[in-house]
Amino acid sequence: MSDALFEKHLPLLRQALAAVESRVYWSPFRENLANLSEEALNAGRQAFEAYRDASFYLDQPGVVGRNGAEVSPYGLPLNVSYPVCNPDALIAAARTAMWPWVKAGLEVRVGVCLEILERLHEHGLEMAHAAMHTTGQSFTFAYDYSVGQALDRGLEAVACAHREMKQVPSNAHWTRPTAKGSSITMDKTFTPAPRGVGLVIACSTSPTWSAFPGIFANLATGNPVIVKPHMEVVLPLAITVAICRLTLKELGFDPNLVSLLVDDETRSVARIAALKPDVRLIDYTGGRVLGDWLEESVHQAVVFAQKPCLNTVVVDSTDDYLGLLRNLAGTVCLYAGQLAATPRVILVSREGVKTPDGVVPAEQFGRDLGLAIARVTEDPARAAELLGCLRSQKTVEGIDAARELGEVLRDSTLVEHPQWPTARCYSPLLVRIDTQLPRQFSSQSFGPFVFLGETATTTEALALAERLMAEEGALAFGLYSTNEHVLELAEDISLRVGVPLHLNLTAGVRMNQPAAFADFYGTGANPAANCSFTDSAFVARRFFLVQSQRTAAR
Amino acid sequence: MSDALFEKHLPLLRQALAAVESRVYWSPFRENLANLSEEALNAGRQAFEAYRDASFYLDQPGVVGRNGAEVSPYGLPLNVSYPVCNPDALIAAARTAMWPWVKAGLEVRVGVCLEILERLHEHGLEMAHAAMHTTGQSFTFAYDYSVGQALDRGLEAVACAHREMKQVPSNAHWTRPTAKGSSITMDKTFTPAPRGVGLVIACSTSPTWSAFPGIFANLATGNPVIVKPHMEVVLPLAITVAICRLTLKELGFDPNLVSLLVDDETRSVARIAALKPDVRLIDYTGGRVLGDWLEESVHQAVVFAQKPCLNTVVVDSTDDYLGLLRNLAGTVCLYAGQLAATPRVILVSREGVKTPDGVVPAEQFGRDLGLAIARVTEDPARAAELLGCLRSQKTVEGIDAARELGEVLRDSTLVEHPQWPTARCYSPLLVRIDTQLPRQFSSQSFGPFVFLGETATTTEALALAERLMAEEGALAFGLYSTNEHVLELAEDISLRVGVPLHLNLTAGVRMNQPAAFADFYGTGANPAANCSFTDSAFVARRFFLVQSQRTAAR
Repeated sequence: MSDALFEKHLPLLRQALAAVESRVYWSPFRENLANLSEEALNAGRQAFEAYRDASFYLDQPGVVGRNGAEVSPYGLPLNVSYPVCNPDALIAAARTAMWPWVKAGLEVRVGVCLEILERLHEHGLEMAHAAMHTTGQSFTFAYDYSVGQALDRGLEAVACAHREMKQVPSNAHWTRPTAKGSSITMDKTFTPAPRGVGLVIACSTSPTWSAFPGIFANLATGNPVIVKPHMEVVLPLAITVAICRLTLKELGFDPNLVSLLVDDETRSVARIAALKPDVRLIDYTGGRVLGDWLEESVHQAVVFAQKPCLNTVVVDSTDDYLGLLRNLAGTVCLYAGQLAATPRVILVSREGVKTPDGVVPAEQFGRDLGLAIARVTEDPARAAELLGCLRSQKTVEGIDAARELGEVLRDSTLVEHPQWPTARCYSPLLVRIDTQLPRQFSSQSFGPFVFLGETATTTEALALAERLMAEEGALAFGLYSTNEHVLELAEDISLRVGVPLHLNLTAGVRMNQPAAFADFYGTGANPAANCSFTDSAFVARRFFLVQSQRTAAR
Repeated sequence: MSDALFEKHLPLLRQALAAVESRVYWSPFRENLANLSEEALNAGRQAFEAYRDASFYLDQPGVVGRNGAEVSPYGLPLNVSYPVCNPDALIAAARTAMWPWVKAGLEVRVGVCLEILERLHEHGLEMAHAAMHTTGQSFTFAYDYSVGQALDRGLEAVACAHREMKQVPSNAHWTRPTAKGSSITMDKTFTPAPRGVGLVIACSTSPTWSAFPGIFANLATGNPVIVKPHMEVVLPLAITVAICRLTLKELGFDPNLVSLLVDDETRSVARIAALKPDVRLIDYTGGRVLGDWLEESVHQAVVFAQKPCLNTVVVDSTDDYLGLLRNLAGTVCLYAGQLAATPRVILVSREGVKTPDGVVPAEQFGRDLGLAIARVTEDPARAAELLGCLRSQKTVEGIDAARELGEVLRDSTLVEHPQWPTARCYSPLLVRIDTQLPRQFSSQSFGPFVFLGETATTTEALALAERLMAEEGALAFGLYSTNEHVLELAEDISLRVGVPLHLNLTAGVRMNQPAAFADFYGTGANPAANCSFTDSAFVARRFFLVQSQRTAAR
């Protein structure tokens, strides 16, 4: 049955392998909501509603209680409780499940992973509602990013894991000539062996998108997974785990290959679980304190970590000034600046921005950018779609702190949401900062604010951008310039600090929306992340190649 | 010119890529000494002699003195002095050399690496003499292992690095349909960027074989390399570095991409260099103390470490008892037990060894193995070829310590070397140990001694083998059995502890001589090594993929 599953999904796998090889556009799981039927939309809404005011069912071992108190940033109380399980019980169950999973072979594992991805896709609408009412993403964005793009990233991880495991044949016939003119033949076998139990610690703003690569890379390479969500953003990953477990069970595998670990009411279990000797892989996305602690304190596990960073844009010159403003405004507004690759600092020379219609003074550029932000957020319905709302009340406080850092060019405003009157929906703040005092703004976390800094020259802006990205880490580096010399300088900086460079983006593509199968997310080269979605190292470090040999029968 | 170099070596690269993909026998750099002309042999000897009683020439920066006091284990004083350089000067020069090397592109780098390997091969005979008179390997073995096999491993690393870097295209044309029925196209470029300066800390018994994978994986992926040899085994790597530098210079690259770092008379510089912030990659083979320290104390660099371990053989049953004895005896005698994958413990059940001619009692098996060792070492000329001699006087003391651990079944004897009367040439000691006291023998380092332990059953032997390998680490696990159930148990153990399994080796192949392109050396799964020659992770962790994108011209 499981072999049949691999055959069933082979066309999808082949397309995924071709896409990562050629890095062309391909997005099998993204769908336009407009193409869905009213019935499907209703069914999705009802499926989501069924989770509310209820105990979430998971037949996991070691249950010691229940916990859960999610409240939607849109104002909707969820009232879902989840089983609290002893981490030791989950780890022991995961280890028991591991060896039969390994022995099933890599193609069976890959087939099961692809089946799980398809089933998650079938539950996409309820997942989108769950993501919306925990992360604050707008429903449209949640369906695209937390479902479609997240599944794409999961599939990419499975395809890369398959590719890496298949680089080595499962067996080989090795014949060496001997000095006496005869030969000796050895039969060799090669098996990818798992590293051990994987712990995936998810963040609160991109719970599925940032967790799926680790979850599926682990499963495909033979490692069981324990998923630890942020306590205020559990539901999207609880649904994920439930579907994984159901699928595994139905296909005859131990459901404890995937389990959910939630905090109890008094303590966070992430650190406790991370230090367990049998946990050998940790995927982490989240704040700096826990990220640094994991990297420094966990020795028994490989830690793949993504932490907060400071993305920078340098504006030098352009042949499409309006396109530049529109693209930057849309980029900083998307999900109210809560994506990790959103630019936080925009640098412009006091010599102004060279355009086909003349030089725009730096001061004017600041006013124009403020107006562009106002324009994309002036219609409340469109603004709500683009901005979503702020996941945490703390992020609202972050706006106030950011306001104190310089001259407010455009203030953040509370946008009245057409459907959800208490939604924390805020447009971005634009603040002119003093580039001589980078410590003041570089430590700000993300949210709906962006800092505009002026430097004497573009060269100085590039140097400051390099320093900020090297010190604080970055996932994206934007440059607007029509000057080939400036482009070359920026390419060198991009290589040196290991940050993807986005040149002259004016329409269609935003620097904080990397595409699965084409774009690497993170490079591993700077403090933003020590890994990349999805390069060879991201999957190859999850398994070992173990071989055996014997003399071949003559 | 450099592109031409890639073209020139492309057939070799293609063969190497095909070999690692299919893992068949291929060994382009191994040669039989018998096929070489007398002139070639003389020239090689003379080239080696020219290094003696002289200052080794290396035009490196930051020279602060000279050091060197190698004495051949065969009794020949070498009297070679090497320049002592300030590590900061070597690191700064390496960083300066790095970016032009990166910009040359991956094919140019790969072409240069292959050219260097060929030139090293041309200097194979002097390298073999240098290896012999530092490591104590016999000349025949040095030419095969420290030259031919070492170059094979270097080529394997270059091929794997090329494969990993080429998995991602250098550029892509990415076209996404838009909602309005048109499309947007982005031009994307992808560049492998180096991690930083690599430090390769070599061991004293396999200086070239264990260092070449790291040196060439680093160079191919754009990272400069500083080679730190063991102070008593400098010459083979000094010749290597000199040939690398000459070739680089001749081809128009900065020779400081490869440099030699030797200790001064008062201190070892390995720890000092390992902590330098610009050192980002460390390849280490050697003792446990420094290895553990590197893994625990170095945070700014990725550490690839190979440390001492305890390889085990379980003898249950066989259909070729004489072949078994001959193979085991030859394996433990090869280079007098100084190879890291040599078995240290042989376990046999008190129920005896089942053979086609009946059961051989455990006690008899011990006597037979002792006799087999005596047989392969009885002719002094052949014994000297097989055993070589002990690199360090400390290893001689290790024999005395090992003798105290149990009943001596066959004593180690000083073999009179036909050519070198003062050579430290010792045959292996065979000691029956108490398997209830594993702590006593498990901590013994390598040398010409092997421990024979008896257990109640084969199952108990397998369980003990698993425990020893999991705790102490192992590179090779041998099993002799004709029982399919026992084979299955052993395969499971091999997977669980991540140790390659060698089944019923009786002729032609020894478990401590893994083949480049076919066999992985180390798995990364147990304390013996946190990496493998050469899997994806070994090369993929040495570079980052940095991309840029811009809207395509319409």
